[in-house]
Amino acid sequence: MPVVEDADAEITAFFWVPDFAVGLVRDLRIRWALEEIGRPYRVRLLDATNPRPAEYFHEQPFGQVPAYRDDQVQLFESGAILLHLAIEDERLLPLDRNRRMRSVAWMIAALNSIEPIILQLLAIDIFNRGQEWTKERRPQVVEFLETRLGKLSEALGDKVWFEGQFTIGDLMMVAVLRQLRHTDILGKFPNLAALVGRAEARPAFQRALSDQLAVFAEHQPAPEGEAA
Amino acid sequence: MPVVEDADAEITAFFWVPDFAVGLVRDLRIRWALEEIGRPYRVRLLDATNPRPAEYFHEQPFGQVPAYRDDQVQLFESGAILLHLAIEDERLLPLDRNRRMRSVAWMIAALNSIEPIILQLLAIDIFNRGQEWTKERRPQVVEFLETRLGKLSEALGDKVWFEGQFTIGDLMMVAVLRQLRHTDILGKFPNLAALVGRAEARPAFQRALSDQLAVFAEHQPAPEGEAA
Repeated sequence: MPVVEDADAEITAFFWVPDFAVGLVRDLRIRWALEEIGRPYRVRLLDATNPRPAEYFHEQPFGQVPAYRDDQVQLFESGAILLHLAIEDERLLPLDRNRRMRSVAWMIAALNSIEPIILQLLAIDIFNRGQEWTKERRPQVVEFLETRLGKLSEALGDKVWFEGQFTIGDLMMVAVLRQLRHTDILGKFPNLAALVGRAEARPAFQRALSDQLAVFAEHQPAPEGEAA
Repeated sequence: MPVVEDADAEITAFFWVPDFAVGLVRDLRIRWALEEIGRPYRVRLLDATNPRPAEYFHEQPFGQVPAYRDDQVQLFESGAILLHLAIEDERLLPLDRNRRMRSVAWMIAALNSIEPIILQLLAIDIFNRGQEWTKERRPQVVEFLETRLGKLSEALGDKVWFEGQFTIGDLMMVAVLRQLRHTDILGKFPNLAALVGRAEARPAFQRALSDQLAVFAEHQPAPEGEAA
């Protein structure tokens, strides 16, 4: 288990989040990659329920988690951190140039072609739940998302992973698709649902998730403190 | 001017698009990078007004432009193509590991932290213009976007480029911010507006834009054919 006090790699994470976000906060993406390559890391905890301290914006311009640092870099954006961790490690990025760059392409597809539509659905189903506009808009977003996922499903076909081995492309795609867990949409694309299942079954994912959840459990607010 | 018939690098682009998309189609991002490094390329034109041919989805899983190929790779997603072009060329990516990965972080920030909000605004202002839901939703999206751009503006401060020299981070951020041209939002963040102006003044950008527009001009439909 690579959470180690004096590791040189440090990520930021929240010490507690509301239920809808449990198991989805983006430090999970980095914990998972670190577990895949067996790299020790330490965690610096932030308070999700209050504004970030002003100095944190120098580490993460938008105040999000994770920020990342090690003896080489100080970084933000989970896609960039994943690339930094993977670029010299063929366990997460093949050495062959075409498969290497195509793995990056799947990671970027997750971030720019799939996640923006899922974020619109989360805006409707969670962050603005019940507002009048969401009734007219939701079917449009679902149709757009299902069309896009249909193409993604065709591209995956019967392959186990997108580029012949598990890469940061699969890791990010699965992390993005997991955000649909409050819907039955993924059930319409059995090979994508199976991809998510295969990835979640990896020991590295299980350790990463368990370490993230352990922090939340430790900081669970008492019932009367649950407002925020 | 690196548009050359027998270049080994090939991008796909549309031969014509409606006015709202002119100067914004994503092959511009790749043309621009190719101009910055002086790499010749050829263009394969597709019809934006009809469904893509079935075999095109093997090149670009979502049927978008650009797809890219050269003697090393066959790629999709403009972020991945930019990285492929820049990774061995310090004109677009510094060699220093921290500045190198931070430049990637700004590119990913453009794709995953800024563009998803701008796409929501385009969905409101262009693709679903006039629909009832957009009236309630638009102020929420504008507020979210302006908060995020405020943080981006603070991060840029009085720097000329995000990481000390022009990189794929600046290129992608500017390409993303240009999609706000139909609004006055960027005017509220003078340093971001100036960043866009500086980048658009680069000869490489001007050549890329001019080559993209020349294709559209050549294929401008006759008035009676403008339906689609």
